[in-house]
Amino acid sequence: MEFKTRLLEMEAGGNLIVVIGARDADRLGVISSDRVRLKTDDSEVVAILNIASEFPRGILGVYDEVRQRLELAEGDVVQVRSAERPESLGFIREKIAGEKLTARKIEILVDDVVERHLSDIELASFVTALQINGMSMEEVESLSRAMVRAGRTINFDRHPILDKHSIGGVPGDKTTLVVVPIVAAAGYTIPKSSSRAITSPAGTADRVEVLCPVDLRMEEIVEVVEKVGACIVWGGALDLAPADDLFIRVEYPLSIDPLLLPSILSKKKAMGSSHIVIDIPTGRGAKIHTVDQAQQLARNFIELGSRLDMQIECAVTEGEQPIGRAIGPVLEAREALETVMGSGPPDLIDKAASLAGILLEMVGEENGKDKALSILSSGKAEEKLRQIIEAQGGDPEVDPEYMPLGDKWIDVKAERGGRVLWINNSAIAHIARTAGTPSDKGAGLLLEAKMGDLISAGDVLYRIYAETSQRLALAAELAEELDPIAVGSRIGEKMLIRQVKGELRRRPEFILER
Amino acid sequence: MEFKTRLLEMEAGGNLIVVIGARDADRLGVISSDRVRLKTDDSEVVAILNIASEFPRGILGVYDEVRQRLELAEGDVVQVRSAERPESLGFIREKIAGEKLTARKIEILVDDVVERHLSDIELASFVTALQINGMSMEEVESLSRAMVRAGRTINFDRHPILDKHSIGGVPGDKTTLVVVPIVAAAGYTIPKSSSRAITSPAGTADRVEVLCPVDLRMEEIVEVVEKVGACIVWGGALDLAPADDLFIRVEYPLSIDPLLLPSILSKKKAMGSSHIVIDIPTGRGAKIHTVDQAQQLARNFIELGSRLDMQIECAVTEGEQPIGRAIGPVLEAREALETVMGSGPPDLIDKAASLAGILLEMVGEENGKDKALSILSSGKAEEKLRQIIEAQGGDPEVDPEYMPLGDKWIDVKAERGGRVLWINNSAIAHIARTAGTPSDKGAGLLLEAKMGDLISAGDVLYRIYAETSQRLALAAELAEELDPIAVGSRIGEKMLIRQVKGELRRRPEFILER
Repeated sequence: MEFKTRLLEMEAGGNLIVVIGARDADRLGVISSDRVRLKTDDSEVVAILNIASEFPRGILGVYDEVRQRLELAEGDVVQVRSAERPESLGFIREKIAGEKLTARKIEILVDDVVERHLSDIELASFVTALQINGMSMEEVESLSRAMVRAGRTINFDRHPILDKHSIGGVPGDKTTLVVVPIVAAAGYTIPKSSSRAITSPAGTADRVEVLCPVDLRMEEIVEVVEKVGACIVWGGALDLAPADDLFIRVEYPLSIDPLLLPSILSKKKAMGSSHIVIDIPTGRGAKIHTVDQAQQLARNFIELGSRLDMQIECAVTEGEQPIGRAIGPVLEAREALETVMGSGPPDLIDKAASLAGILLEMVGEENGKDKALSILSSGKAEEKLRQIIEAQGGDPEVDPEYMPLGDKWIDVKAERGGRVLWINNSAIAHIARTAGTPSDKGAGLLLEAKMGDLISAGDVLYRIYAETSQRLALAAELAEELDPIAVGSRIGEKMLIRQVKGELRRRPEFILER
Repeated sequence: MEFKTRLLEMEAGGNLIVVIGARDADRLGVISSDRVRLKTDDSEVVAILNIASEFPRGILGVYDEVRQRLELAEGDVVQVRSAERPESLGFIREKIAGEKLTARKIEILVDDVVERHLSDIELASFVTALQINGMSMEEVESLSRAMVRAGRTINFDRHPILDKHSIGGVPGDKTTLVVVPIVAAAGYTIPKSSSRAITSPAGTADRVEVLCPVDLRMEEIVEVVEKVGACIVWGGALDLAPADDLFIRVEYPLSIDPLLLPSILSKKKAMGSSHIVIDIPTGRGAKIHTVDQAQQLARNFIELGSRLDMQIECAVTEGEQPIGRAIGPVLEAREALETVMGSGPPDLIDKAASLAGILLEMVGEENGKDKALSILSSGKAEEKLRQIIEAQGGDPEVDPEYMPLGDKWIDVKAERGGRVLWINNSAIAHIARTAGTPSDKGAGLLLEAKMGDLISAGDVLYRIYAETSQRLALAAELAEELDPIAVGSRIGEKMLIRQVKGELRRRPEFILER
């Protein structure tokens, strides 16, 4: 049937979607979610059909994605006919039925995901089926390989390629900004691609962007790494494992994350990494709650790595409270810079040296942590970080004293003296985001008290920074409500962590970062 | 934050959806699928957020559903802020985790479905979790009650209220058009609400619409039933169990149907039915493939019915081939009319009399099937059907000879003589739909051969009717490809039912009708 194009001047979130009226759909013998083949004189594409009951007859509503594929203009004539659904829908049904998928089927499915042949409904069903029925290690391997294959890869023409990754979940974790310069200063290649925050106060890319550009193109990354042996860039636009971003779109509203392993390791594989340390922060407020769970996950990472020809070691780290004192892009970039300059907080120094040490030992060095600490104290890590900043197009002379913090702030003080008994990670993250992070880079929290610290009534627990008074007020209000730092006169004195009331209507505490 | 309305002049498939640009989303601290509270001077609503990267700053794209709720005009100012997600998202996660849901949680969830607070992604995930993890009978009962509660109900002020339902899946099943007049002619009340075809060649509502209007309002239905003791109407616009239509929207693309029981019985409950016979067509080409499966399903129907205070009996019926000879709205209406007039096909007569007989015995009659057959042969069923047609606004004098069949047709002939060994239901349905059913009411198939018939080479197997030459050509082409009627010289001679080739790219044979 022939239709006239109406441009909707809007994206459909990546999917290839067109809209027709209910009567036209009847005439075509199709219903919502069916596929239609669209044909112009020059090209054709299969799209997912939406039906709008009142849409005018003979009109085809076209979202931007389809407009671009077919190079359509308003009023253009398009031939529309019913098309078959993608083969991979059958594989999703097999997964729902509890079957295992072969490597070939997973490859077809991932290709269909990347080609935008599957709707949100179908993707959500697949991800839910994975969450419930799980995947065998063979399936995880196939999925990882398919995700690598469906995207771009990078080749640095060097060996070994070191890498570091955290599964995330702990606010203020700027460890990457310290580990990368230590490892590179030791003479190794460590091209780090990282992500922006999705639900956290800052991602590594958000932190580094305070110091230098992070959205480098593939060729620029190769150049930077050639020059200084390292980079810390945003991986989001590199098209490294494009299926993953599409999975995340449906995982986020469901607060499930069955693709953690293939998601992380496919991106590492695409970056050409050969030796990787994976940080698994563990604790009540982290993604992983117990050391047992962390060890199981670590074993899975190591096995999948070995299947993908990457050597992996995991670090199960303290995740009960934020790392260091700073939360928020500028605050964290400043703290990382201070740390390589010799005045960082002890937990950040210990964590960074531990992770860097593991990497150094993986490639044959001895006493890795000592070596890392001595590189840090020698000033070589600072020198390397400034080289990276310069190579990526930032100011190598950047001074932590003069970094643009939010100029609105408020101090939250202890109502009583005692020891800091616990800190609620998700409450801290929530307050920081309310203050404006990650989009207001100068917003965030600076903790003046960490677990175990002895404080007096009236001491400052933390300062909230914001770029606008409105944000500051909202964050201060939330801080009062959430009361994220507990103080008691001795351990065991304040046993009630949270009172759960009858009507619980809260945002789920789900942190989706990779 | 303040936004200006841009009307998108399109529905979002029922959901409350708005669109903003990526930068505005950053400033609001929200991402795709998050909820936002929209506020005008007069009213407010919580909507689901979509993000379009290139959408202009400060502009809120508004689909029709939100426009109607807030009575918005182009350019209207709307206050937008981040809102919490619906509580029922947590219940979906519980179901994913394999937990059982309480009646209260299911009630909240169904209310959120009906209020359009859940996105397609979330609904798809819920339905997938139900398909994989199943439901206890308690959950099925709670879900059915919640679905009734969320919609309208009807009260006929009579007792008993009889009803008949088929789970569907067999083409040409016009049994309802014969059962209802028999039962009503016996003096019982049987208000039948039925559905239109979704993926089949015709639904009961499509068949009856050939004879009289079926989209009656609630008050009109009560009036018709008062007058003639029965009706056969379309249930779709009655808002009887509105959650179900929303579930179907996501079940269809996934080809799963975990809500079969609550879906059917919630609508019966809303109609006030007290005694129901449920037809479970069973056979290779039907929804249910074995008698064992049919019996298990029957037991579940009976138990759920008893929990909902409805007496249920089930009929496991022959579902290996189409019922009668006619497939397609006009053809089937004609065959049903001929049947009450005394010249119907034997399988249709037997099936209708069996089901009517079960119903009559459920309310205390003896020898139900005999009674049904004698009502049929006495002409009282015809008289009752014509009363129903008249009461619903059709022509009671309708003559099967003069019904408007498609004027294009082609005969498909047997290439060899022998017995009809099997008939492929889904191929028959596919050919009929390609010929134009259900929207082209005069299109369809008329079978000249049924299983077991002895035929000669060159005999007509079936005639394909269509309203356009184009449709007829497509259907004829498909008929040749699918070859839906197998003829062999003796049973056992043609053992190969289908050859499955390496590259199988077919539409799934999934029939979603209720």
